[in-house]
Amino acid sequence: MTENGFHTVNNKNYDIPKIGIGMLGYGFMGKAHSNAYHKISYMSWPPVAIPQLVAICGRNDKKVEEAAVRYKYQGYYTDWKQMVKDPSIEIFDNGSSDKMHFEPTVAAAKEGKHVFCEKPLAVSIAEAEEMLLAVQQSGVKHMCGFNYRFIPAVRLAKNIIEEGKLGKIYQFTGHYFHPFGSDPEEKVENIWYAGPGHPGVLYGIGSHLIDIARFLAGEIDTVMGITKNFNKTRFDSNGKKHAIAGDECNAAIFEFTNGALGSIETSCIAPGRMNHQFWEINGSKGSIYFDLEDLNHLHVCLKQNNRKDLSGFTKILVAEPEHPYHSIFYPQPGIALGWEDSFVAELNHFIDCIINNKSVEPYGATFYDGYINQLIIDAIEKSSVNGKKMKIAAEF
Amino acid sequence: MTENGFHTVNNKNYDIPKIGIGMLGYGFMGKAHSNAYHKISYMSWPPVAIPQLVAICGRNDKKVEEAAVRYKYQGYYTDWKQMVKDPSIEIFDNGSSDKMHFEPTVAAAKEGKHVFCEKPLAVSIAEAEEMLLAVQQSGVKHMCGFNYRFIPAVRLAKNIIEEGKLGKIYQFTGHYFHPFGSDPEEKVENIWYAGPGHPGVLYGIGSHLIDIARFLAGEIDTVMGITKNFNKTRFDSNGKKHAIAGDECNAAIFEFTNGALGSIETSCIAPGRMNHQFWEINGSKGSIYFDLEDLNHLHVCLKQNNRKDLSGFTKILVAEPEHPYHSIFYPQPGIALGWEDSFVAELNHFIDCIINNKSVEPYGATFYDGYINQLIIDAIEKSSVNGKKMKIAAEF
Amino acid sequence: MTENGFHTVNNKNYDIPKIGIGMLGYGFMGKAHSNAYHKISYMSWPPVAIPQLVAICGRNDKKVEEAAVRYKYQGYYTDWKQMVKDPSIEIFDNGSSDKMHFEPTVAAAKEGKHVFCEKPLAVSIAEAEEMLLAVQQSGVKHMCGFNYRFIPAVRLAKNIIEEGKLGKIYQFTGHYFHPFGSDPEEKVENIWYAGPGHPGVLYGIGSHLIDIARFLAGEIDTVMGITKNFNKTRFDSNGKKHAIAGDECNAAIFEFTNGALGSIETSCIAPGRMNHQFWEINGSKGSIYFDLEDLNHLHVCLKQNNRKDLSGFTKILVAEPEHPYHSIFYPQPGIALGWEDSFVAELNHFIDCIINNKSVEPYGATFYDGYINQLIIDAIEKSSVNGKKMKIAAEF
Amino acid sequence: MTENGFHTVNNKNYDIPKIGIGMLGYGFMGKAHSNAYHKISYMSWPPVAIPQLVAICGRNDKKVEEAAVRYKYQGYYTDWKQMVKDPSIEIFDNGSSDKMHFEPTVAAAKEGKHVFCEKPLAVSIAEAEEMLLAVQQSGVKHMCGFNYRFIPAVRLAKNIIEEGKLGKIYQFTGHYFHPFGSDPEEKVENIWYAGPGHPGVLYGIGSHLIDIARFLAGEIDTVMGITKNFNKTRFDSNGKKHAIAGDECNAAIFEFTNGALGSIETSCIAPGRMNHQFWEINGSKGSIYFDLEDLNHLHVCLKQNNRKDLSGFTKILVAEPEHPYHSIFYPQPGIALGWEDSFVAELNHFIDCIINNKSVEPYGATFYDGYINQLIIDAIEKSSVNGKKMKIAAEF
Repeated sequence: MTENGFHTVNNKNYDIPKIGIGMLGYGFMGKAHSNAYHKISYMSWPPVAIPQLVAICGRNDKKVEEAAVRYKYQGYYTDWKQMVKDPSIEIFDNGSSDKMHFEPTVAAAKEGKHVFCEKPLAVSIAEAEEMLLAVQQSGVKHMCGFNYRFIPAVRLAKNIIEEGKLGKIYQFTGHYFHPFGSDPEEKVENIWYAGPGHPGVLYGIGSHLIDIARFLAGEIDTVMGITKNFNKTRFDSNGKKHAIAGDECNAAIFEFTNGALGSIETSCIAPGRMNHQFWEINGSKGSIYFDLEDLNHLHVCLKQNNRKDLSGFTKILVAEPEHPYHSIFYPQPGIALGWEDSFVAELNHFIDCIINNKSVEPYGATFYDGYINQLIIDAIEKSSVNGKKMKIAAEF
Repeated sequence: MTENGFHTVNNKNYDIPKIGIGMLGYGFMGKAHSNAYHKISYMSWPPVAIPQLVAICGRNDKKVEEAAVRYKYQGYYTDWKQMVKDPSIEIFDNGSSDKMHFEPTVAAAKEGKHVFCEKPLAVSIAEAEEMLLAVQQSGVKHMCGFNYRFIPAVRLAKNIIEEGKLGKIYQFTGHYFHPFGSDPEEKVENIWYAGPGHPGVLYGIGSHLIDIARFLAGEIDTVMGITKNFNKTRFDSNGKKHAIAGDECNAAIFEFTNGALGSIETSCIAPGRMNHQFWEINGSKGSIYFDLEDLNHLHVCLKQNNRKDLSGFTKILVAEPEHPYHSIFYPQPGIALGWEDSFVAELNHFIDCIINNKSVEPYGATFYDGYINQLIIDAIEKSSVNGKKMKIAAEF
Repeated sequence: MTENGFHTVNNKNYDIPKIGIGMLGYGFMGKAHSNAYHKISYMSWPPVAIPQLVAICGRNDKKVEEAAVRYKYQGYYTDWKQMVKDPSIEIFDNGSSDKMHFEPTVAAAKEGKHVFCEKPLAVSIAEAEEMLLAVQQSGVKHMCGFNYRFIPAVRLAKNIIEEGKLGKIYQFTGHYFHPFGSDPEEKVENIWYAGPGHPGVLYGIGSHLIDIARFLAGEIDTVMGITKNFNKTRFDSNGKKHAIAGDECNAAIFEFTNGALGSIETSCIAPGRMNHQFWEINGSKGSIYFDLEDLNHLHVCLKQNNRKDLSGFTKILVAEPEHPYHSIFYPQPGIALGWEDSFVAELNHFIDCIINNKSVEPYGATFYDGYINQLIIDAIEKSSVNGKKMKIAAEF
Repeated sequence: MTENGFHTVNNKNYDIPKIGIGMLGYGFMGKAHSNAYHKISYMSWPPVAIPQLVAICGRNDKKVEEAAVRYKYQGYYTDWKQMVKDPSIEIFDNGSSDKMHFEPTVAAAKEGKHVFCEKPLAVSIAEAEEMLLAVQQSGVKHMCGFNYRFIPAVRLAKNIIEEGKLGKIYQFTGHYFHPFGSDPEEKVENIWYAGPGHPGVLYGIGSHLIDIARFLAGEIDTVMGITKNFNKTRFDSNGKKHAIAGDECNAAIFEFTNGALGSIETSCIAPGRMNHQFWEINGSKGSIYFDLEDLNHLHVCLKQNNRKDLSGFTKILVAEPEHPYHSIFYPQPGIALGWEDSFVAELNHFIDCIINNKSVEPYGATFYDGYINQLIIDAIEKSSVNGKKMKIAAEF
């Protein structure tokens, strides 16, 4: 204590594990993940571990330095091949573009880093297989960034289903609608799926819906699908015309191995649907639905034998001490979380699994989930071309 | 005027057309239609015509007499073959069971009666073709009972699309979910699709969704579909076991001839969804959605160029003097209509088309619509068996 | 049976009571009530009684004859003083303007007719007292037209409260908002509360909210209130300026005799609120809320001791066989009712009470309820002037 | 750059202002504010300033050290009298209990610190006056923590009103309902307003509603109010009985100086209402409503002259680049914010006003707003006792 009453803190009093992070990418996901690491360090106390932001990596020296300053990394790399060898790094977090998921992630796994890779895991089955093989062979922990599993309302849905409260699952129905490309005059720069080489909306957001279907309703057996692109060319702000390779919307129907019926539809040409991930599950004893635009609520209808007159969907504000992931955030009830908090819970889970050597499954998505997801995407695309029902046949 | 001030009315002062009705069936649809004819006679004034309830028909003498008394028909028949010859009857209204749609309706058309037939038009393509042929050859007016076209909110949606306010149509998505069969222990008597010979929920309510898709988004070109039945046998209250022939739920994806993508899903095993007909249409300039459980509202998002910050879905209470079909009901604003009022507007339209020799189309569904609907149902069922995309090929 | 198979019905087979109706007024309420009497005769079977539409009454000979033809009354009167003496009339139904409630209703009661009078019962305490006295002295059945008690969702709320499921009642909060006068340029003809001599929105719709508060939460002890009129003059379509006497909006807070806290607010200058009667009740064990724009639903939150994580408001579609008043309408589940059906259930209740000599209370509103309502309106108006808390002191 | 490619960052390249923070309190608000300071430093880039977390203060040495470690403060104080003199501190942030707002805040202001004080500003008019006087005399920047002004949807409402889009304001209606004390058996520890000396829910959350009313609808002229306490004693977990001094619910009606009518109701005994801050504003040209349980949406109805048939409330997801405060968070559209982000925007505004010497008003709440708020609370409490309309008479 100084004369004026100021005490400096003594960190040595606090025996909290630390874990070194190496982050690839400083864009949208780089920001969301970095923010999550910061919040993990203080939102609950003591945290499972305090993330040490060792380094961030990107090709542009100036920009990556700025990102390191901004997000308080100790330093940065401009070559991921060097970062994956950094001995201070325990988690390699790949938040870069889809095409950059494969090579760096495999390399990091081979270096023995625990790997977290954003979704979609890869842009081909071959890549996904190799990535899965790499983590299996190296024995590291691995997660694929299906962050919506970690919204408290989604996890509550999972718990309700695991408890058997829905009975036998009959149906899964889902939409994931964005508005961004609905106007044919919209410029390429403003449309996330329209960039060069982007595989499209089935990869970009359909993959989320496929993961939710598998997470909540079961493994998928067969699919039929249609993918569409209404605006095959668009201009950029400089008046240059670009071909758009990926799909703009798609629909698929499927059968689960448990016999349930499934239906998903994805679109980025749906005016007014800003982030409308809607899904519903119907079973013999109850139903659940959810909308990401109102992410703190879950709607649940469980049959009440004795009072049919009081039956209906209950709108649950999933923000109470009794709810999943609540202990990570504010202890008070009624506190609405934001979209970003799904990443906080997700990365907190990964760190917890590493520190305490727990299995990432079944609540976290692994590279296996990313691989199966890729098989399903591929089958939908093939069905759209050949007009036939496709079987999902995992090789792992 | 009598001494005590009582005036008897002089109907001759009121030169309002009359139209004779012969009703087949006195169950659910018989009640809804009879109620509609009564309300048509006084809800707006002067009405387009005053329905004369000539006769109602059913096999059970005692029950049909009671129905005639109850619904104020002048008399009744126990043999539809006799009723279709009654010269006082101008409209033959078939509200009987699905299997009884075909023969009486064809006979009535051949007798030159205008024919209104409940949906689904038939239970096979062959029947539907012959019914369509019959009305075309006799030249009578004909409607198929897709009553949801006549909900003011649905018609407003149609108007908005016809005005081009949604731009190019990209997608149609629909659900029609009922809860009735979700419990495997539910008795056969309580499940409308479980009766002997009932063709199932794709016929029963899927047909409505197919009609709405065609009404609002355009003609359907190809389909892929899956139908499911999780509870292939059920008991009745007497402990007798019954085989359930029809489907309990189904999902289909399709392409419209205008290139749009479509998806529908029907279920009668969805707890909590009491009458959840939901559909959404996305176009290049706007979106619309609707839910039958809240039938007085339509949700519309039209892009606003100048104020993107004020954009979103507008929840319109479709109950104002500016709205479709409002003049048929109460002139006051803000008066919520009920489910039954869709029949009032529908049958009022039919009578108007007859009295004023107008075309039933495009706002009313004809036997052609019933026939195409049947083709699509058939294609979905075939696709579910063969796992292939099916082409809709009308022969008319 | 005729040779061609046509059977005429034999009404004598059906021993159903009949009850004679005399209707005063053929405007908005005249239509809603006449429609209700028709529907009562056939919606459920057998009905409690079949209304005989004896006569309708209005001053304009030509218009009232037209109304009699339209709504199928046997005849008409142009002088209510003569109609109240008609021996065929058992129910005198007063659906005329507020100012015309007093004199004809008292006269009819004195003639021994059962009297139904629209709300507000009167336009002064003195009138209301005399009306109540008249029915008490003559011993006739009497109801005041607070029809919203007869919406199934509202009655379900009453049942839930009577069962004690909300525990001790803490609070009642209500809004009743209309949009009609919000624009200062709106013409007098388009604003229901702006007609000459109209007492304003507290009488017009505030009375409904007061009745719901009393029906569900208990008797009112004291009130404080504010009434406002922002547009004291308006033009009609001919450019003539009119003074507007009544209030446009008001707010009041009150204490119930059971200690609960109350708050109501009424407005006809609320853009976008087409018929927004919202109210909420909070008790020690649960809460309920309702919105008239979505009249088939009730939202109920009952505390669940064992699963706080599944707690929230349940949105109940009050349209199932288990629900109040369902048996009056369609036996099928999931059939949304319209606004007009509140009158069907209300008048059906009145007829049932007469035919079976039951008490109109507690589910129907009597002239006593109309009288107390008037006391409360008066107290709110006085408090707005004197800025003080007013005690409700019934003399009956 | 090291040999292995690791670059350490060079902070000197980034010329971003810094600002020293001294935080009083490490409970709920201490956490929310500390989190906000962290997020301000990186969520947008460059930030208006980077908060330097100089010190946190609390009486319990062990706990405050832990808080300093957890939230990454450089050090801590156990005596606020010493912290307010720390020359590194530019902002004194008072997030401690209501009773502790007065003395430390005045002291900090006298030391020339910019002061941020949580709401309610004080627990008496005398305190509030002295606090306002202190900041006026010292000339420091000051804010009172009415954070809900900084929810993007609330600020959008403010903008819409400032643009005149609602026309003349007629009415403000608000509820703020919590469920925490509804059960009489609930233990004292679980009820935030039941602690010893807590002034109750009118202070605790009613103050928020009063602030929103003033922020959006104008200054308040007169009030009438009722406050209630149904559970005057409660037990704690140890079985000890406690008297509860403050109110549990209250209702007030008021007149604004602009003539508008106001109504608010606050409750902490409303089951199912987890954080239900609802308010609605009606004007001559439009209406707005908002619910804090769905904080990313604003519902707006603006009259459309040309298309009355498309009119209604538009549900706006206030999370687009066009919206207020969006630039502070993620540049992507459709990203739902959480409750905590209101503090991020609020404290960012305060820092911006200090760094760039801008006025805190009109978008931020000052000590003047806190003082007026206290006057209104006091008037409601007095009116509840004397049953009279009270005038709000500011002395400043």
